Amino acid sequence: MIVLMNSGTDNELKEHSRFFEASGLRAYTVSTSKGPVTTFMGPDHAGLEQLPKLSPAFQCMQPSVPYVLASKTIKDTPTVIRLANGTSIGGKDLVIMAGPCSVESESQMAEAARAVKESGATVLRGGAFKPRTSPYAFQGLGLEGLKMMRNAADREELAVVTEVMDPDDIPVICEYADILQIGARNCQNFALLKKVGKTGKPVLLKRGMMTTIEEFLMAAEYILSEGNMNVILCERGIRTFETETRNTLDISAIPVLKSKTHLPVVVDPSHAAGNWKLIEPLALAAVAAGADGLIIEVHPTPETALCDGKQSLRPDKFASMMEKINQLYSMMATHRS
Amino acid sequence: MIVLMNSGTDNELKEHSRFFEASGLRAYTVSTSKGPVTTFMGPDHAGLEQLPKLSPAFQCMQPSVPYVLASKTIKDTPTVIRLANGTSIGGKDLVIMAGPCSVESESQMAEAARAVKESGATVLRGGAFKPRTSPYAFQGLGLEGLKMMRNAADREELAVVTEVMDPDDIPVICEYADILQIGARNCQNFALLKKVGKTGKPVLLKRGMMTTIEEFLMAAEYILSEGNMNVILCERGIRTFETETRNTLDISAIPVLKSKTHLPVVVDPSHAAGNWKLIEPLALAAVAAGADGLIIEVHPTPETALCDGKQSLRPDKFASMMEKINQLYSMMATHRS
Amino acid sequence: MIVLMNSGTDNELKEHSRFFEASGLRAYTVSTSKGPVTTFMGPDHAGLEQLPKLSPAFQCMQPSVPYVLASKTIKDTPTVIRLANGTSIGGKDLVIMAGPCSVESESQMAEAARAVKESGATVLRGGAFKPRTSPYAFQGLGLEGLKMMRNAADREELAVVTEVMDPDDIPVICEYADILQIGARNCQNFALLKKVGKTGKPVLLKRGMMTTIEEFLMAAEYILSEGNMNVILCERGIRTFETETRNTLDISAIPVLKSKTHLPVVVDPSHAAGNWKLIEPLALAAVAAGADGLIIEVHPTPETALCDGKQSLRPDKFASMMEKINQLYSMMATHRS
Amino acid sequence: MIVLMNSGTDNELKEHSRFFEASGLRAYTVSTSKGPVTTFMGPDHAGLEQLPKLSPAFQCMQPSVPYVLASKTIKDTPTVIRLANGTSIGGKDLVIMAGPCSVESESQMAEAARAVKESGATVLRGGAFKPRTSPYAFQGLGLEGLKMMRNAADREELAVVTEVMDPDDIPVICEYADILQIGARNCQNFALLKKVGKTGKPVLLKRGMMTTIEEFLMAAEYILSEGNMNVILCERGIRTFETETRNTLDISAIPVLKSKTHLPVVVDPSHAAGNWKLIEPLALAAVAAGADGLIIEVHPTPETALCDGKQSLRPDKFASMMEKINQLYSMMATHRS
Repeated sequence: MIVLMNSGTDNELKEHSRFFEASGLRAYTVSTSKGPVTTFMGPDHAGLEQLPKLSPAFQCMQPSVPYVLASKTIKDTPTVIRLANGTSIGGKDLVIMAGPCSVESESQMAEAARAVKESGATVLRGGAFKPRTSPYAFQGLGLEGLKMMRNAADREELAVVTEVMDPDDIPVICEYADILQIGARNCQNFALLKKVGKTGKPVLLKRGMMTTIEEFLMAAEYILSEGNMNVILCERGIRTFETETRNTLDISAIPVLKSKTHLPVVVDPSHAAGNWKLIEPLALAAVAAGADGLIIEVHPTPETALCDGKQSLRPDKFASMMEKINQLYSMMATHRS
Repeated sequence: MIVLMNSGTDNELKEHSRFFEASGLRAYTVSTSKGPVTTFMGPDHAGLEQLPKLSPAFQCMQPSVPYVLASKTIKDTPTVIRLANGTSIGGKDLVIMAGPCSVESESQMAEAARAVKESGATVLRGGAFKPRTSPYAFQGLGLEGLKMMRNAADREELAVVTEVMDPDDIPVICEYADILQIGARNCQNFALLKKVGKTGKPVLLKRGMMTTIEEFLMAAEYILSEGNMNVILCERGIRTFETETRNTLDISAIPVLKSKTHLPVVVDPSHAAGNWKLIEPLALAAVAAGADGLIIEVHPTPETALCDGKQSLRPDKFASMMEKINQLYSMMATHRS
Repeated sequence: MIVLMNSGTDNELKEHSRFFEASGLRAYTVSTSKGPVTTFMGPDHAGLEQLPKLSPAFQCMQPSVPYVLASKTIKDTPTVIRLANGTSIGGKDLVIMAGPCSVESESQMAEAARAVKESGATVLRGGAFKPRTSPYAFQGLGLEGLKMMRNAADREELAVVTEVMDPDDIPVICEYADILQIGARNCQNFALLKKVGKTGKPVLLKRGMMTTIEEFLMAAEYILSEGNMNVILCERGIRTFETETRNTLDISAIPVLKSKTHLPVVVDPSHAAGNWKLIEPLALAAVAAGADGLIIEVHPTPETALCDGKQSLRPDKFASMMEKINQLYSMMATHRS
Repeated sequence: MIVLMNSGTDNELKEHSRFFEASGLRAYTVSTSKGPVTTFMGPDHAGLEQLPKLSPAFQCMQPSVPYVLASKTIKDTPTVIRLANGTSIGGKDLVIMAGPCSVESESQMAEAARAVKESGATVLRGGAFKPRTSPYAFQGLGLEGLKMMRNAADREELAVVTEVMDPDDIPVICEYADILQIGARNCQNFALLKKVGKTGKPVLLKRGMMTTIEEFLMAAEYILSEGNMNVILCERGIRTFETETRNTLDISAIPVLKSKTHLPVVVDPSHAAGNWKLIEPLALAAVAAGADGLIIEVHPTPETALCDGKQSLRPDKFASMMEKINQLYSMMATHRS
């Protein structure tokens, strides 16, 4: 169920909002090409069919897809997410998020931050709380790691993206990070999605290894329906029978998502491939297919990395890749405009 | 890393425990065919190679699989989990868990409980907190639903299994349920696994749609490594390209798991198939393949169910299926002993 | 397009057949519970809508599934395929096909034939022309192997099933075998399907690793539409992300197929699992799920096998498994009748 | 087993060839950066270990991968396949193959040929013998279709690629086509692979929907081992759980294949996506990831196509896509050289 206000005055909106909210509906205001549009949504249909009769300003709509707020039906302009350091995601610039898999030390983060900034990244990535298949594997430095990452980012005027796994960690991660990352294994952890939704912070939502595109958009909807429209979708490879790569990068997901949603789409070739040699061709492919950004593992010394060294780029390889990426993105941009 | 005590006296165990714990190791005591064995495990190897020298009673072992506590290496007898109502899981009886997908009302639960008890179930299933792909779908009755389920179960002397999605709900679910269920989508939600591990309560861990058998055992290890050995593994179908069934029941997972772990293995044919007509042949197949139990959706009136009606059995179909299941299990039992 | 004659006299049938055939239709006569029914089918709809007007005996039908001859729409009784040695497939007996992966020698086949006959098999399996992933792997003994298999089978009054890969080999295989096997990799090799269809010989069609159940039935339809109704469907595992087993036995395919088609369904647990230890539980599961038969790799000395030794049962293991299988099938039979 | 001659004189080669061939070995001569290298290969190891002792010019090698002739071990320069119309595949030019799914008429082919030529294609594609899931679907125009395609191609100086399904059709297809295509469903139809291998004609081998990259290279090896080094590999999407696209284009397969083999790699975005709207982004991604060419469905009037109209580009869309593709390929080329 959905009620769209498209021609109502501010007064009409205010007047009816009370009635709608009393009916258990929730208001969502999104900016569209026609200005802000407020949508009221609720869990069931009780009596809502009569709402349009209240005022011609309200139109009752039966959505054709189960993800309403994520769909282009409700918002026909791309969502652009702006961070404190000036980065905008989903706009005309390609956003580059880069950094090591895990935060390991002050010096490692400082070096990584400097290197990725130099090559054009504006967001620093790094894991302080790590989801590991084994309970005995390195689980991350936690709060200490968050502080190291924040310090390194601040020195380079980078924003910070880091993963949240445990709802209990949300407050502290919100304090240190600009973007909360939801990992692939938690893509359908609905309790966590609702909780990061409530923070209002930008969320980078990774697609699960076996999440269909429709389920992925429904997972985003869990965040959006808490009133948080700052969701970045991240394709990072799906699980298939092929074993040459860790996962199979679903390159088609980029244009399919762009056709269905106004949310920005970034690509993580590092986790998809699991092999640094494949990152450059996959990153180029992602940009050619229309991605709004990339998230890449870069480590000053991959051979000593505590985690995922095999899939991390050295700073020099990252720099030479970024040159090609920028050239390609410029070429793509001439066709867009 | 792992340290096994196999010939030490109680005094030796006590004496060295302090030293081990100071080294960051944790003690796990499991019962084996040779009596209780205490294993010390820790996150890294620091200095542990010298431990055996302290006393010949301690043997330092390099496990061949990454799930140590779940493996048969450490425990060569089947784990049997006993519930308050006398049900035991993993022992000589086939355990039957049955009930509706969602708790809907007192009368629905009362009727369901009576029906499943009559046909031999000893555990009542039902969802009070529901994981739904869409945030707008019915999310369950919550606490009120838990109470309805407990009442219905108590009248029939059934145990209760129900899903926990949000760590915040763990205390209240522990109060009303005998077994905490972790759903397929949370199979690798490590924060939640650790928290249900800490409760010590029996946990029914459903295999994720995209989880390999090795990853599944590693997920169990997250619970076990919190000192909670009461884990029941549940095969419920994996995601494949086939669309005739909702998921593909991985029947081979039963003998593969039984060859690798001492934990009980139950099968959920209802969610695997997504179609009540397939439940009987799949349930029979599961028992023939060696399952320790079944978890089946039974609803007094599937056509009015708020959720998953299509895959719910009517009580009469359940009764006639249980007759065949019991006959088959008796036949299987004669070959086991 | 399909035209059904259900109440016409023999004369009406003869009279109209000429007209139908001139319209490019082909006649298929199948036996049903109401006696033989002749169906006329053709590649397009041209003018066929007016056919029923010719005689009320003809009913023009729009099939709801794309596999017409394979479906229960056209034939409501199980297809039973009878072989020269008295074996019938799809009837009241469970059919057991067993033998080595590859024909290797006279003595190996003699020993295998004796062993499988003793435990109740009535069909001898063995590969003379082998489909191997590598062109450098052992490709089979060819004609010489066919002769060895026939000799061994004849001595034990067994029927012979063997794979055909190359259309050129069809005549010679027809001479020596009772059933032509189409391997999983050729499941959608339409040229080959049509050619084995034309022989009229019973065909064991293995499901491809990547073939949906609908595609599988369409592949069978290629054989049936050549006028050969003697098709046996064989589930042998599909490809998924799981790596503990060579393929994932799709146990649900058995009841799904039985609900859609009148053709017999057998199961090959050896190729599905790729591990002899899993054959017994999977074979029991297949029978419990309603399979009409099993095809099992049995080798007198698996450790010396030229191919697939790891998944071959020794004769003694096969014998003890067959005891349980027979007991289970008897139990199942009491419920069917 | 493999024997490499790298420093021998022509005389030594001739002298030993007789001995090798008598031992059941077959000679393969490939051109490498060090000039032509002749490799002798055979089905088993019998006595071959002593071969190097015959002459120091021969080196006995144990290959690290099971596809020897397809691997870079044996040939370190890219294979370039030259067609009669001047097209070369695998060299410095991007090759574009385009045309309708099925040959339907003289005028359709003439129009398609003109349109694709205009936009830069040098190879005309079109199906005369069609592999269809259903035996009742349009099976192609056969020989008549071949002639129409050849005529249309000749008028525009295009080469012709078309699928061969039945070994019986090989001679006639060789007469009319420049490249024989093996479809995805026949990727492991080893009998057919050997037969197209024997023709010596260029072969476009499509990856099967569930063929791993290693199995794909082994399938190519079946063709190569018949002495036909003119194999073009084609990635066309694999089967996964995702249903938004017909198949999932495995973009990573491009760099993975390029790292393992000297054979050219082309990409078919039309069959991968099953939706014309996705063709442009996927084609751009394929070129960005390093593909040597593209094979694209272009139909003058997709809405009237007898087959796959939904995934066919109109000529104008194809033209505008080709502009971007060419610009991208030029950019890529500057980095290669």
